[in-house]
Amino acid sequence: MLRLKLPTDPRWVNIAEKNIEEILTDHAFCEQKAASTAISLLVTYPEHSDLVTEMAALAREEMSHFEMVHKRILERGYTLGRERKDEYVNKIMQFFPKTGDRNERLINRLLVAALIEARSCERFKLLSENIGDQELAKFYASLMASEAGHYTLFINLARKYGKAEEVNEKWDALLTYEAEVMQGLSKSEYIHG
Amino acid sequence: MLRLKLPTDPRWVNIAEKNIEEILTDHAFCEQKAASTAISLLVTYPEHSDLVTEMAALAREEMSHFEMVHKRILERGYTLGRERKDEYVNKIMQFFPKTGDRNERLINRLLVAALIEARSCERFKLLSENIGDQELAKFYASLMASEAGHYTLFINLARKYGKAEEVNEKWDALLTYEAEVMQGLSKSEYIHG
Repeated sequence: MLRLKLPTDPRWVNIAEKNIEEILTDHAFCEQKAASTAISLLVTYPEHSDLVTEMAALAREEMSHFEMVHKRILERGYTLGRERKDEYVNKIMQFFPKTGDRNERLINRLLVAALIEARSCERFKLLSENIGDQELAKFYASLMASEAGHYTLFINLARKYGKAEEVNEKWDALLTYEAEVMQGLSKSEYIHG
Repeated sequence: MLRLKLPTDPRWVNIAEKNIEEILTDHAFCEQKAASTAISLLVTYPEHSDLVTEMAALAREEMSHFEMVHKRILERGYTLGRERKDEYVNKIMQFFPKTGDRNERLINRLLVAALIEARSCERFKLLSENIGDQELAKFYASLMASEAGHYTLFINLARKYGKAEEVNEKWDALLTYEAEVMQGLSKSEYIHG
């Protein structure tokens, strides 16, 4: 799946499907955080008009996904819970140093975003294939395609602003690190748990 | 206009219409900040399902307005500039103390948001009536209606979560304070300048 180096432990989906309320709340906030990340990128790099155009549309799309998840939470008689720290995302964000020039930091942020979309896509695929609630299974199948599109968007933007070889090296190193992070996870009822 | 206690000094519109590039950049970031505020409210108060529903839709709408402004920036051969501090909004946000219980802080935030929408609506009306660029004049007339709708949304939410008398008193005091803040402004080429 999108060249990830370690697939999710299949046991994760068993944990996840027993905790639909938790998964849905966590998923809603993943969409919200994706929207906030897109907004942060356009605020930080307003001079890149194509990035701004893409990130504004993406933020809107992520909020519409948030709304879809929230609707399903309410339909099932649940209430959106509190946002939690995303341990996986926090670890992934530590990979690249905060130093480097403005453009390098942009490329790093784009690659991190691409990776999170790729892993989310893999997790949504597992949910779509394993979850008992048929309406939710279809919902995750449809979102899976969006996440794959977002992965491509971020990778393409990184390649646009960076040199091909450098971007490929960074991406490969990030994937290797992510596989290590993922080895300690797959144990809890979160989208990136 | 929506019961504001001091209309904008008419000289503001002359300053604004001579600085279309600045106004458009500032306006784009007003929409972005409105989206971010809506997101912050739903993250902070997830237990209020109707608030979450409204704020998610609002964030999406504000981002679509951002996109409309950005499109107009590019069409005119400009580039989105850097975000600046909004002196007006910072002053308005200082009015209510940060203390008080969770629900009181929610009401305060809703009233502040209502006020900013009301003042933006008044400013957009002035732009729509005075700006030479006819396409922009029509654009501001259409956005004016949205801002009025958002003002109503925030006021109604404040009345839903608070006691009528208390909300009315707070709103009146906030309007009085805002009129004082506004007396020192209307001098620069920003939406709330």
